[in-house]
Amino acid sequence: MKIILDGMGGDNAPAEIVKGAVAASREISHKIVIVGREEQIAAELSKYKYDDSQITIVNAEEVIEMEDSPVKAVRAKKDSSMVKGLRMVKSGEGDLFISAGSTGALLAGSLFNIGRIRGIDRPAIASIYPILGHNRPSLLVDAGANAECKLNNLIEFAYMGSIYMEKVVGRKSPTVGLVNIGTEEGKGNLLYKSAYAVLKKSGLNFVGNVEARDVPKGACDVIVCDGFTGNVILKLTEGLAWNIFKMVKNKMTDGVRAKIGAALLLTKIKEIRKETDYSEYGGAPILGVKGPVVKMHGSSSANAVKNTILKAIPYVEENVVSMIQESVYNIEEILASDE
Amino acid sequence: MKIILDGMGGDNAPAEIVKGAVAASREISHKIVIVGREEQIAAELSKYKYDDSQITIVNAEEVIEMEDSPVKAVRAKKDSSMVKGLRMVKSGEGDLFISAGSTGALLAGSLFNIGRIRGIDRPAIASIYPILGHNRPSLLVDAGANAECKLNNLIEFAYMGSIYMEKVVGRKSPTVGLVNIGTEEGKGNLLYKSAYAVLKKSGLNFVGNVEARDVPKGACDVIVCDGFTGNVILKLTEGLAWNIFKMVKNKMTDGVRAKIGAALLLTKIKEIRKETDYSEYGGAPILGVKGPVVKMHGSSSANAVKNTILKAIPYVEENVVSMIQESVYNIEEILASDE
Repeated sequence: MKIILDGMGGDNAPAEIVKGAVAASREISHKIVIVGREEQIAAELSKYKYDDSQITIVNAEEVIEMEDSPVKAVRAKKDSSMVKGLRMVKSGEGDLFISAGSTGALLAGSLFNIGRIRGIDRPAIASIYPILGHNRPSLLVDAGANAECKLNNLIEFAYMGSIYMEKVVGRKSPTVGLVNIGTEEGKGNLLYKSAYAVLKKSGLNFVGNVEARDVPKGACDVIVCDGFTGNVILKLTEGLAWNIFKMVKNKMTDGVRAKIGAALLLTKIKEIRKETDYSEYGGAPILGVKGPVVKMHGSSSANAVKNTILKAIPYVEENVVSMIQESVYNIEEILASDE
Repeated sequence: MKIILDGMGGDNAPAEIVKGAVAASREISHKIVIVGREEQIAAELSKYKYDDSQITIVNAEEVIEMEDSPVKAVRAKKDSSMVKGLRMVKSGEGDLFISAGSTGALLAGSLFNIGRIRGIDRPAIASIYPILGHNRPSLLVDAGANAECKLNNLIEFAYMGSIYMEKVVGRKSPTVGLVNIGTEEGKGNLLYKSAYAVLKKSGLNFVGNVEARDVPKGACDVIVCDGFTGNVILKLTEGLAWNIFKMVKNKMTDGVRAKIGAALLLTKIKEIRKETDYSEYGGAPILGVKGPVVKMHGSSSANAVKNTILKAIPYVEENVVSMIQESVYNIEEILASDE
């Protein structure tokens, strides 16, 4: 297998990307190709001991910046690390593309350069959703690729998410839940009412509606919703957790007594920090494109890069793209039966 | 002023409702009428020293239960505490109705028995959203009354929320933000793009799009969104906060060392608990009906009941219903200019 890494994407590129690639290379025998400005990447690589038959560089002079208009950038910057990397997956030179660059550009670039799986209307971003206190994360689909969704999109998200969760995360017969404003059938707006009716008849392990309050408690393995709602769930979780921990930290450093208490709790605080550390959970696949593409957090550390690489390997090995392609028949059949 | 209280609504009725009413009565001179099963309410009242010219009972034999179908229940149970209380506001016998009963029934009952403000298409539930670490909550509109929204609904929510925040919560020229998946204009789905364009031209203190991650940080005073999104925000906040605090608690009681640390932090833990205690913040008004109606949390304690009563008084005194009625002209004008 050949893993293609965007050497220039994200806030910490290329330093942390390269460092993470080297760390990952020590745990796997797959080849890693870092695409980006050769000189910069070579300079970073020279800091480490690594196998130069395992890690190689492909030069790309341009960089897609966060400020660039996604669609324009992926059309104009043909010599960017992102476009070049995606094309290597398209041509078969690579098996998997991983980038910490702009989500919008990666999505647009995947569509232009690799293309949709035939029969999948809209690709989705599937994000690992950590369940605190349990080492058993959920998967949120769509996490923000599609702000406007139709019924068939939600059904596609459910199938694709279920396949990914089973094959890549290793969750047997994953439960699938639909985010809604109440648990009973018939709750929500027209889109969600229709999605419930269709998912009920699917072969998926559908557990019905899931209220947002139960999402952080791990109510289901695959959390299905439109991308607007998914984005709200993901970002609210991030913001609220940050805010709560900040408040707790302020309280714990307010006065001598509190500081001593906090010192005694240091090991526990570290445990909590580890559980809430996104870098442990791997990246977010773009499901529905004709080749494995994974988005990393923009501020990924070397550890996040390493974990994303390691955890993405089954995305290729388990032929998830082909499995999604095969599920299209089921999706179409179940949607047709609903008409 | 005569405040009408649903004596039978919620998990802790009538005991906590009565206790809260008595506590509130000691801080105000307004009259409080408790509607519900007279015998039960009188028995609860007899436990306290109170002024029986200030607190009186109106008998209502029926109770609307949480399991009841909201629309059917408010139509069939004419002698329920909820329907009777709402009708007292309609007839002018009362100035304000407060209930901890079913949200759906209170919403349907308000529409049937009091009616919409002319020109307001859909009433909304506005919920106080606590900002941890700051004694300065935001207001979330719509918090779940309308799962399906059109452009005019979002604009109405913005105006109504802004008026309530200024007049009842006392926030001068409150900032209004639109929940969205990015801060730039042009983000989101068609509904949100249109809402941005209209709000930009409104006389409101519109601060643009607000990402969900910034909502818990107090990004704006009035958080505007459709009821599906609002419900997700409110319930996810509740569930995630619960989960984080549970995890922290588990860690703090795991081992002797941790327990001692936690003991030293007890005062701080109590401070955090107080800040996250919904009972401090008052109830959620149903905005857009032709009379002040306030929903309390279903499991309201006496303290929550007391605070809801005290904090709802300006809803009447400041003539918020009339102000919303007057804003209809502005809403219609701005929507017309958008066509």
